[in-house]
Amino acid sequence: MSLLADLLSTVFERRYRRETPEMVEGDRSLTEITTALVGSMGEVSGLMLAQEILTRFAELGDSEKYEFFHYIASSMNIDPEAVRTALEEYERKPSKVSYHAFVVAAEPARQELIRRLNSVPNATKYLVKMRADLLRLGGKYSELQALDLDFRHLFTSWFNHGFLVLRPISWESPAHILEKIIAYEAVHAIDSWDDLRRRLEPTDRRCFAFFHPSMPDEPLIFVEVALTKGIPRSVQALLAEDRNTISADEANTAVFYSISNCQAGLAGISFGNSLIKQVTADLSAELSGLDIFVTLSPIPSLTKWLKQVGLTWNTDEPDNMKALAAHYLLNAKSRSGLPFDPVARFHLGNGATVHAVHADADLSEKGRSQSGGTMASYLYDLPQTIQNHENFANTREVVASSEVRTLAKPITLFVAKKTHD
Amino acid sequence: MSLLADLLSTVFERRYRRETPEMVEGDRSLTEITTALVGSMGEVSGLMLAQEILTRFAELGDSEKYEFFHYIASSMNIDPEAVRTALEEYERKPSKVSYHAFVVAAEPARQELIRRLNSVPNATKYLVKMRADLLRLGGKYSELQALDLDFRHLFTSWFNHGFLVLRPISWESPAHILEKIIAYEAVHAIDSWDDLRRRLEPTDRRCFAFFHPSMPDEPLIFVEVALTKGIPRSVQALLAEDRNTISADEANTAVFYSISNCQAGLAGISFGNSLIKQVTADLSAELSGLDIFVTLSPIPSLTKWLKQVGLTWNTDEPDNMKALAAHYLLNAKSRSGLPFDPVARFHLGNGATVHAVHADADLSEKGRSQSGGTMASYLYDLPQTIQNHENFANTREVVASSEVRTLAKPITLFVAKKTHD
Amino acid sequence: MSLLADLLSTVFERRYRRETPEMVEGDRSLTEITTALVGSMGEVSGLMLAQEILTRFAELGDSEKYEFFHYIASSMNIDPEAVRTALEEYERKPSKVSYHAFVVAAEPARQELIRRLNSVPNATKYLVKMRADLLRLGGKYSELQALDLDFRHLFTSWFNHGFLVLRPISWESPAHILEKIIAYEAVHAIDSWDDLRRRLEPTDRRCFAFFHPSMPDEPLIFVEVALTKGIPRSVQALLAEDRNTISADEANTAVFYSISNCQAGLAGISFGNSLIKQVTADLSAELSGLDIFVTLSPIPSLTKWLKQVGLTWNTDEPDNMKALAAHYLLNAKSRSGLPFDPVARFHLGNGATVHAVHADADLSEKGRSQSGGTMASYLYDLPQTIQNHENFANTREVVASSEVRTLAKPITLFVAKKTHD
Amino acid sequence: MSLLADLLSTVFERRYRRETPEMVEGDRSLTEITTALVGSMGEVSGLMLAQEILTRFAELGDSEKYEFFHYIASSMNIDPEAVRTALEEYERKPSKVSYHAFVVAAEPARQELIRRLNSVPNATKYLVKMRADLLRLGGKYSELQALDLDFRHLFTSWFNHGFLVLRPISWESPAHILEKIIAYEAVHAIDSWDDLRRRLEPTDRRCFAFFHPSMPDEPLIFVEVALTKGIPRSVQALLAEDRNTISADEANTAVFYSISNCQAGLAGISFGNSLIKQVTADLSAELSGLDIFVTLSPIPSLTKWLKQVGLTWNTDEPDNMKALAAHYLLNAKSRSGLPFDPVARFHLGNGATVHAVHADADLSEKGRSQSGGTMASYLYDLPQTIQNHENFANTREVVASSEVRTLAKPITLFVAKKTHD
Repeated sequence: MSLLADLLSTVFERRYRRETPEMVEGDRSLTEITTALVGSMGEVSGLMLAQEILTRFAELGDSEKYEFFHYIASSMNIDPEAVRTALEEYERKPSKVSYHAFVVAAEPARQELIRRLNSVPNATKYLVKMRADLLRLGGKYSELQALDLDFRHLFTSWFNHGFLVLRPISWESPAHILEKIIAYEAVHAIDSWDDLRRRLEPTDRRCFAFFHPSMPDEPLIFVEVALTKGIPRSVQALLAEDRNTISADEANTAVFYSISNCQAGLAGISFGNSLIKQVTADLSAELSGLDIFVTLSPIPSLTKWLKQVGLTWNTDEPDNMKALAAHYLLNAKSRSGLPFDPVARFHLGNGATVHAVHADADLSEKGRSQSGGTMASYLYDLPQTIQNHENFANTREVVASSEVRTLAKPITLFVAKKTHD
Repeated sequence: MSLLADLLSTVFERRYRRETPEMVEGDRSLTEITTALVGSMGEVSGLMLAQEILTRFAELGDSEKYEFFHYIASSMNIDPEAVRTALEEYERKPSKVSYHAFVVAAEPARQELIRRLNSVPNATKYLVKMRADLLRLGGKYSELQALDLDFRHLFTSWFNHGFLVLRPISWESPAHILEKIIAYEAVHAIDSWDDLRRRLEPTDRRCFAFFHPSMPDEPLIFVEVALTKGIPRSVQALLAEDRNTISADEANTAVFYSISNCQAGLAGISFGNSLIKQVTADLSAELSGLDIFVTLSPIPSLTKWLKQVGLTWNTDEPDNMKALAAHYLLNAKSRSGLPFDPVARFHLGNGATVHAVHADADLSEKGRSQSGGTMASYLYDLPQTIQNHENFANTREVVASSEVRTLAKPITLFVAKKTHD
Repeated sequence: MSLLADLLSTVFERRYRRETPEMVEGDRSLTEITTALVGSMGEVSGLMLAQEILTRFAELGDSEKYEFFHYIASSMNIDPEAVRTALEEYERKPSKVSYHAFVVAAEPARQELIRRLNSVPNATKYLVKMRADLLRLGGKYSELQALDLDFRHLFTSWFNHGFLVLRPISWESPAHILEKIIAYEAVHAIDSWDDLRRRLEPTDRRCFAFFHPSMPDEPLIFVEVALTKGIPRSVQALLAEDRNTISADEANTAVFYSISNCQAGLAGISFGNSLIKQVTADLSAELSGLDIFVTLSPIPSLTKWLKQVGLTWNTDEPDNMKALAAHYLLNAKSRSGLPFDPVARFHLGNGATVHAVHADADLSEKGRSQSGGTMASYLYDLPQTIQNHENFANTREVVASSEVRTLAKPITLFVAKKTHD
Repeated sequence: MSLLADLLSTVFERRYRRETPEMVEGDRSLTEITTALVGSMGEVSGLMLAQEILTRFAELGDSEKYEFFHYIASSMNIDPEAVRTALEEYERKPSKVSYHAFVVAAEPARQELIRRLNSVPNATKYLVKMRADLLRLGGKYSELQALDLDFRHLFTSWFNHGFLVLRPISWESPAHILEKIIAYEAVHAIDSWDDLRRRLEPTDRRCFAFFHPSMPDEPLIFVEVALTKGIPRSVQALLAEDRNTISADEANTAVFYSISNCQAGLAGISFGNSLIKQVTADLSAELSGLDIFVTLSPIPSLTKWLKQVGLTWNTDEPDNMKALAAHYLLNAKSRSGLPFDPVARFHLGNGATVHAVHADADLSEKGRSQSGGTMASYLYDLPQTIQNHENFANTREVVASSEVRTLAKPITLFVAKKTHD
């Protein structure tokens, strides 16, 4: 990775960055510089202004950041009158000129501002952080929400899947990347460098992350994979310190047991589906013995839903827990008709199927509290996912293995009966 | 470079590319698939549709390409009525929802189409070629010109300067990159691999190119540099096979003697200014002996203008040729008030100054014909360029060395007198 | 490759190399410096002396080089009396001290000289060239032959197979490596860069070379490979400009059609066997469709031998040519009992078998002259080569396909009869 | 680094390693295979034998390892009678043949054995470990000491300075390299990954290591450097968690505060001098503000020597401690006439000078015990080191700054007086 970083951090950057603080802009306010940047005629002075804005913004406190956002949201918005005029002119006489005038009018100046900020080397990372601030500070203000839509619009273009790079993460990866893996792991916390090594170094473990070429030191999302014989029934067994390591050749199953998004500023721009499918494709090419690609996933809203519908559970009865979980995954829906469970929604939306449920599978405090310790396995049968995905998108039907369907039956019957009664 | 290529060509690509041709889309027409892609709910089937569109398009003849462009230009345009409705709703009640609805309405679906096409690995290169086709085929059709604005809008975002990577090109560069340098050299043609080696291998020669991470095998623009003692007076001397090579440490001058754009599909997206300035910064950091950064540039419209204004010239009188060229660079303007000469326009717009003119400096047929063999040197004094650039943008005043101003004087006086008479 | 070069050319080198010429050694003769280097107590002054010796040597004419070799061959030889004394002391009282004294006495000082010369970065390349000079100049002088044994002894250690790196050579390889491929191709000359591209770029062509980490810009040996359906019968067909390219997946055969050693200074240090076997292993891992690994080889001494034994041939009778070639490969022996043909000796020694003979297979002037246009294919069946190799080493029996044995029969009978008569 | 590793671990290796365990050699003893390897005629079967020996050896217990060493030390020794015969033949008739026969006879077969073991990819690392075992097990046995001389002879050739690669170690280096830095740090222990980061990540810290291309995952030696304003007076201040970081540009001094050898199996093959000088050259090229290159070194034998000569010390009197240390460094000699202190011996031998002594400079238990908390700074003035080195080699005179000489005076006078009395 450091090589890619190397490629991408040009000498230009190193030199200009250093000189920036002494720039003549010291006596202009941030909003003045920002306005100047949007109006800037010059590429080079534009670079300097952009650099100064990014540098100054990073040092602001929250209330000043809010003011900055408010300023660009309100002063660099579209002008409806101008849009209307340009639109009418275009309708009257469609041409390159009239279309261009409309495009310019219909796009708020703040989009051009964000693009110009991004012309400085390394800016993308700062803009992603800026949007994280915006999401944190702007939640309730509708004018900031509109600004966020502009950020998101540009990020969708910049973080296009065609631009992403999948890289394996291993114990041979640079330490400054690995410490981010420790920090960003959101599912099963990594306690220490020794813990990290146990997840990366053994021959039956893999990890992959997506990177963007313009921020090569920042993983966007990563997935941890265990290579196993058969589908494991609990995360404790998977992560046990004294477990027996197998060679990658012996494995027939790849288990995606943790997927973590890394950048708060990229919220709403989804990478998970691509990641799982690229990793599945890579692993099946590398290890011909693998024929099952499956997750070991939390069921984060199970107990919440059980309470809502008034079903009780007892974690000491594993068979009953599995039946409840199976029923929930097959039948619990949100108002929109999609699965109630967010993780289920994600995997089914990707074209995966509900393959198995496990009791006593996540005995951490979080696991017990949110799902009574149950977990689910979603199966990624790559050639089948497209069909599944389209079916699901059209019909919202949950496809599950017969095992899961059989497990769910008693509860489903019971609920049906109860409802009927 | 092959390493960057390596990083960026994921296994995913290699696998999916191969399978594409056998896809089930065989019985759907290109426009049907294109429509399906814009409407596609699914990321994965979207990838396959996108791949198929790119593959099929590349094999079309010109008339079919024209039809394809016409189809997306007309059927995926904005709907003015929908824009107006959304705009009014937003004016009535500005909110995240109403702003989003406006944004969606104001952007033609073909922009989303191009973005989705770009989600396939390696797609960017194909889209750049697609726009080259569009520019070639669409010149006269206003609806295609509007489509080109959409391409250009997205390319401006994707080819943001912050995303570009400056790489030295040397005799140790990969042959498949070098053959593109041979092919794309637009100023002083490279005849053979031996000729190329003479431009790259000597210790007093450099070459740099901009690349984009998503098309690492395709230079976007490159500049050839000679390191010299003093400013050379002709391109013949610079490129002579039997010239004496000096060591880079001995040089006090870096001469940019050829700048070539490589991608017809990136027309209108300008990289030259950034390139020259980054290379200047890099070279001055690497070689502390360099204190002059200067071009040796053609004066492509000199004879054309001389004819227009009725001045005669005689290439056997070098002093007179220099005077004419100096006068032209200082005084010849287009209707917009900018310099008549496109090369002068470019360098003065970047903040360079007219530093010297040379007679008998380009004795090639092209050089004789367009400028009677004269050439110009523009000076890049980096700290001064920002001020120059802003002055020029505001006042359009041509800054030149006193030498050039003195050279121009007799002609200027003569012309003034003649005009007066 | 440039990256490896990069890694290995430390800043140290770049700096010290430049300062070398101005060193204070200017007034000492080359032999004085050489003597000083062997006696040098200091690592750093040693580096400077070594650098100076290498630099000065490279600029010498042949007669001075001869003198230099003569000097170190004679003045830095073993001292038999000292060896004998140390040996007796060791026999009397074997100990670390006495063994060390013997080792020092038994090794000529010139070996230590060569090792010290090699302590300068990049020295290895210069030492390889130095030995090439030695072989060229020293052929007839026994004292220089002994010196060559010392070079060879050290080179065998330095160019140990465990230190070599196999690298694919492709059209994406650096131009300065590719021009060496053009220069070193010894079997079927490469005429131009276009010719080179035809051997590297098509999907059904491969090339691999061995490199040593301390001279990463210099291939040691390379092999060109064609991927084909079935074994090709002539080199003309293989290299035809208008041939049909196939995809690598379609091929069932890998044909090694040219193997070239690159470094005259590494004569006698054999890399070919390792190269073929590593490439065979790599290709069979990459392309599962390959099941035949075979050469298309010249038969360089066929006509020479036919003349010696008084057999006549007619190139217009292909069947007869094949029979003669088959008979020759199976039966023609040198005095040592090994195959008369050097290429056959090489491949059979590696454990390959004679698989096929082809008439009209190399219609170049060289091909016609040395073998009447015939060529041979040797088969590398990797698991079988060890057994074959050991058999051959013990029994010198030539293993051939039944087809080749059948082809040879008429001639063998004829010769036997003639001999008997 | 992983890239270099990548380059050097060929597919060949990966494939052959896996197959090794099932080889037919299962029924031959280790000594039988070892004998077979030395006699092996075949390159390929040789590779397999070599791999098997390395694999089996690594799994042996100490007594079996001892037996293995004993076997090759005794059974593959030189045969004095054969040496004598060959020597006499060579004396009688010097020729390539007779010289070759002598060379073969004078070199014990175990050297050829070690070379053949090294022909397997990755073997070098195993051989370095093998020698570490030999040094550990063989200390007292003279026949094993002779064997060690053979290892060392070959390692000196293989680990020639011209083959080494200097690499910066940073927080961006691969974790598997960094964990070795933690493990090998021999001077000031690194307690944790956080501690390591404090030594690598700040802008005023550097670390460099030598690597060998054939064992790219194993640093051979590394040095830790602090960039400071002025020479620091204690290691506590240098490593304080709450110290103020400066930018590299502000520093005028580079302090080498820890140098650690990493490979027990490379004992006696010295890299430290080269390392310090290459790092000095690199840093002075990178940071023009640096003009002092100095160590902060322990004085490991100070208290030991003070006791020997009957001087007493009191760590509460820093001035007295500095005087004692200065006197010791200038005057304390071993029987050979070299400095008594091993660290002083090393740096003075490299051409450095004694620049300063510091009291209360290493307050760790080890520091207090071995030197009463004092430390020394040795100055590396690169252009001066060659002269210093040669002087020291000839005269053993200790060059010190006037400050140190002045400091030493009172003690020196006192000692002289006492001795005189």
